[in-house]
Amino acid sequence: MGTIRVVIENIQPQIDGGSTPVRRVVGEDVSVEARIFTDGHAQIDGALLFKAGTSADWQSVPLLACGDDLWRAAFTVERLGRYEYTVCAWVDHAHTWQRDFKKKFAVAQETEVDFLVGAEHAHELALRATDADARRLSEWANALVDPNRSREERAALADSEGLRKLAHRYPDPLLVLRHEPALGVEVERERARFSTWYELFPRSTATTSGVHGTFADCEARLPYIAAMNFDVLYLPPIHPIGATERKGANNRARATAEDVGSPWAIGSAAGGHKAVHPALGTLEDFRRLVARAEEHGIEIALDLAFQCSPDHPYVRAHPEWFLLRPDGSIQYAENPPKKYQDIYPFNFETAAWRELWAELKSIVEFWIAQRVRIFRVDNPHTKPFAFWEWLIAEVRKSRPDVIFLAEAFTRPGPMYRLAKLGFSQSYSYFAWRNSKTELTDYFTQLAQAPLAEFFRANLWPNTPDILTEYLQFGGRAAFTVRLVLAATLGASYGIYGPAFELMEHSAREPGSEEYLDSEKYQLRHWDLEREDSLRDFIARLNRIRRDNPPLQSNRRLRFHAIDNAALLAYSKTSADGSQAVLVVANLDPHHPQAGFLDIDLEAIGLGADDAFQAHDLISGARYLWRGPRNYIALDPRHAAAHVLRIRHHLRSERDFDYFA
Amino acid sequence: MGTIRVVIENIQPQIDGGSTPVRRVVGEDVSVEARIFTDGHAQIDGALLFKAGTSADWQSVPLLACGDDLWRAAFTVERLGRYEYTVCAWVDHAHTWQRDFKKKFAVAQETEVDFLVGAEHAHELALRATDADARRLSEWANALVDPNRSREERAALADSEGLRKLAHRYPDPLLVLRHEPALGVEVERERARFSTWYELFPRSTATTSGVHGTFADCEARLPYIAAMNFDVLYLPPIHPIGATERKGANNRARATAEDVGSPWAIGSAAGGHKAVHPALGTLEDFRRLVARAEEHGIEIALDLAFQCSPDHPYVRAHPEWFLLRPDGSIQYAENPPKKYQDIYPFNFETAAWRELWAELKSIVEFWIAQRVRIFRVDNPHTKPFAFWEWLIAEVRKSRPDVIFLAEAFTRPGPMYRLAKLGFSQSYSYFAWRNSKTELTDYFTQLAQAPLAEFFRANLWPNTPDILTEYLQFGGRAAFTVRLVLAATLGASYGIYGPAFELMEHSAREPGSEEYLDSEKYQLRHWDLEREDSLRDFIARLNRIRRDNPPLQSNRRLRFHAIDNAALLAYSKTSADGSQAVLVVANLDPHHPQAGFLDIDLEAIGLGADDAFQAHDLISGARYLWRGPRNYIALDPRHAAAHVLRIRHHLRSERDFDYFA
Repeated sequence: MGTIRVVIENIQPQIDGGSTPVRRVVGEDVSVEARIFTDGHAQIDGALLFKAGTSADWQSVPLLACGDDLWRAAFTVERLGRYEYTVCAWVDHAHTWQRDFKKKFAVAQETEVDFLVGAEHAHELALRATDADARRLSEWANALVDPNRSREERAALADSEGLRKLAHRYPDPLLVLRHEPALGVEVERERARFSTWYELFPRSTATTSGVHGTFADCEARLPYIAAMNFDVLYLPPIHPIGATERKGANNRARATAEDVGSPWAIGSAAGGHKAVHPALGTLEDFRRLVARAEEHGIEIALDLAFQCSPDHPYVRAHPEWFLLRPDGSIQYAENPPKKYQDIYPFNFETAAWRELWAELKSIVEFWIAQRVRIFRVDNPHTKPFAFWEWLIAEVRKSRPDVIFLAEAFTRPGPMYRLAKLGFSQSYSYFAWRNSKTELTDYFTQLAQAPLAEFFRANLWPNTPDILTEYLQFGGRAAFTVRLVLAATLGASYGIYGPAFELMEHSAREPGSEEYLDSEKYQLRHWDLEREDSLRDFIARLNRIRRDNPPLQSNRRLRFHAIDNAALLAYSKTSADGSQAVLVVANLDPHHPQAGFLDIDLEAIGLGADDAFQAHDLISGARYLWRGPRNYIALDPRHAAAHVLRIRHHLRSERDFDYFA
Repeated sequence: MGTIRVVIENIQPQIDGGSTPVRRVVGEDVSVEARIFTDGHAQIDGALLFKAGTSADWQSVPLLACGDDLWRAAFTVERLGRYEYTVCAWVDHAHTWQRDFKKKFAVAQETEVDFLVGAEHAHELALRATDADARRLSEWANALVDPNRSREERAALADSEGLRKLAHRYPDPLLVLRHEPALGVEVERERARFSTWYELFPRSTATTSGVHGTFADCEARLPYIAAMNFDVLYLPPIHPIGATERKGANNRARATAEDVGSPWAIGSAAGGHKAVHPALGTLEDFRRLVARAEEHGIEIALDLAFQCSPDHPYVRAHPEWFLLRPDGSIQYAENPPKKYQDIYPFNFETAAWRELWAELKSIVEFWIAQRVRIFRVDNPHTKPFAFWEWLIAEVRKSRPDVIFLAEAFTRPGPMYRLAKLGFSQSYSYFAWRNSKTELTDYFTQLAQAPLAEFFRANLWPNTPDILTEYLQFGGRAAFTVRLVLAATLGASYGIYGPAFELMEHSAREPGSEEYLDSEKYQLRHWDLEREDSLRDFIARLNRIRRDNPPLQSNRRLRFHAIDNAALLAYSKTSADGSQAVLVVANLDPHHPQAGFLDIDLEAIGLGADDAFQAHDLISGARYLWRGPRNYIALDPRHAAAHVLRIRHHLRSERDFDYFA
């Protein structure tokens, strides 16, 4: 259409040219901006259009000009699933006329013809208007050219705000450009953004040492977990475990008869991915655990580990899903020269890939039918990206409330790709980011576009596979500071317990990140009542997260200058900017550290001269500060970090209540 | 296709998600990179595919892995017009097998089955190979499992480079991902990138003062222009000029009978955009000028100013192409409260836009028929972007050698849009970038992606509309330094002469950038033989540009540190890195300035300890330097800048020839 004169460029947010939707949770805003301009000097106008995927109706929000051709508007996503948004714009002749008329009138130019032009614009708008609006436009046009009215009176009419509004409502379709195709938003529930995870091995929950734990034991553990204010309980695979090539304790190549095997070697004569390990109980027991957890405000997350032990029923029923070697054997997992003979990977290049995909999807559906809504996916980067994209989209069609966490510890490309294709959350590099520079660089990157638009990091200071050097050698202070960092840098974080709260820190061998006597291969019995347990500290921290919206999102993270390389300072603010939490952490678990903090006051909504209260939510202490520069000293023997709620709007120092 | 496991992301170069082609000239490389990876640990392989738009055959270049999932390859564009390129990639099982076999063999693992697997891979490749290649693959496979050969001999076979090559040649189509749609390259001739412009008003070329110049006078001026080594001579509109509402000297509202009018008020009874002003001569005279210019190595560039004087034949013949006001008059150009009653803009929103577009295109075709190949487009940002996109594409269909220069001095959005939609070159903000920071920021931006991929700035220190304050008050040094900056920062630059070489610097009034007694409104007579003319300096500088490839492109511009805010240092290198030019300019036209220069030696292809010669191509002086830090002093009374050719590869200080 040769009459369209506007140009729309660089609509943001937009990932990979629109091929990837941005991600939000219900209730969040999508703030959209674009560069819009036209040739010449005409005024332009435009609208942000959006709709929920299932709806046929586009809703419209006027775009506001922010200068330098930038236009902006926002909408709120209110439903789960897909939204679409786009931008349209047009040359607005009526508004152009208003602007130019004003300038001419101001310098007393002759304007009689201009009144006629203005009336013509109104009459043209009227042709596209509702009856009521058309009447208003005609009346205005007639008044504008009414010889009985004074020139001044008519000039006042020309500046009508109502005309601008009606011009917005009835643009000339021959002039309207609409950006196609529309861009997507994938909307999940709030827990996709804000979640607090606890991982444990169900088989280690028995009250008696050496006894295999059950789902019933897990039930009994729920109050303990709930008291620490976790809202997701993640269980490693709960399925029957293979016997062939089973690994022994500490990953020994040969298992003894007592060895319980790795839960990730899934499948035995007792069943595969849709069965539960007989020693844990029955499917009914599992469903009861899910229901009890729910009563405690806890969701059960299951592990999706799409691989088989040699004893898995699939191996016999569907040999075509595995890679056959020339000698007739099935190819086990290997990363030469390492061999994992207890694991058969699926061959996703099989000609029968459609059947394989369908079966794997049925596994997810099976557990959804048992009321599971969260899945932690084991090593998704070792299965095809196209498979996950399909699977997640299929599942979300009927159940948009299902959350998938990607356990991919690999290069950035594959990790971010998994997030783009649909994973709600992703494990992150957090465990290996220990220095101030590392933490600042990594989390600054995650908090900014494009990553902030699709990648939701879940921060784990430890996992059954990861006992970092920092935790092995840093003592209690290392555990507390890593916990504070995880819980405040990450809207979602998790710990592997009770190893974490009991500060388990012995590695299998020097230089290894594997736990000694790892629960991956054997039962463990934990003394939960130990005096030095971090459980109360964890409970307090998770309560702080619950009470403080700034900690429930990663979008408004800002690092602040502090003149000591061992001290890290950062803030998060709530979406409306009214609340702020400032964290200062001592990254050195061995020595007291002190320095001057230089707060970027504007970033936390304060003026340069405001007095404000910094309320340490961990210790309870309250400090009255004024201005950016404040002295911080942290002794890891007593407190590894401040988590400071910034309280604004103190009218004067006298209003500060030392006893609040 | 569920069997495809590779992912291709972020192919570069790529503008606006591929909707805009990147720009090259014939002979240039397109270096393409992409992030490519797969799930799991398999080896991948891939190719860059490209073709000239008219060809049906895609050519293939192997991609090379550069680490961190980055793959890269390049191709050279050899023809004018459109090229396409894309990337394909696949999992390479044969190569994966080779890699894994090597690791297993190294630790003496059992590998008998692995030999069989390798042979299977080769037999599979053979199914897709030519007869000769299939035979080679079969022979290799048989040797690999030949019981008469030793294990070591067969292990050596496994590491075959030939197998890797054949695996690249015959990938399994079920595993190949090809990025769609392909991306575009628009290829122009070299002058689109490297050009040296001279603008003059033909009517001011008469040898006698007060006489209207002619095309014949322009012809006589050609040796003067050629001696300065310009290769484009741009003429403001050469068409009949309207009489109605004609502007007088110095843009006075009313013209006298003697006033010649503005060449941009196009059209009179003598004709419109396809006619020449009778006082300049005939169309035949014009064609002779074009031919004579060609003999001097100079191309004539014409002005495309798509607007009309009230006397233009279009006004009577096609009133529907203009905006009619309610009083029956035609809407003249205005930017309220300013009025330009001597100009009628076209109404591009006319229902007859198709006819209007076709007519405007016929104007371009008319001048192409007179052998014009370069057009300087007047104010393209005041006509629809869609129109230019269509026009340029239409013209290039048959004449891909036509060059369009956009004269849009406006906000970045519209300027860059014009470049994206097809303009070969664009006027730039250069005239108003005077300080070190301004120049560094602006030209760093232009030299980097994405701008470097589509926006070719043409740098003008002056134009008939722009006499900057810097030139008004900076004296001769201001003219020389701005000339050096334009000629060395810009692969394309131009001056408006003879005003420039004669250092015309009187503004119409204080605060104005308009020339006093501007040639836009009156004849001028210039004394070309003036002693102080810059013509020899300009000739020398343009010769330096011709002789030094680094100055013929903007891609490899690098600024260097120098500890004086009035001194600016930058280098350009040739595409192959073998040549470098280093410029140091004194931006202060009033005072000598000195400082220490810190050369980024790596950027100009030198090692930290290399001795090298810095040969000042302006003064002829040669300096022997070693290391990055060198003292620079520039006195604007003698020399405003060094233009230093860096001569590499001096074997020792003794090889340095002080008398060369």
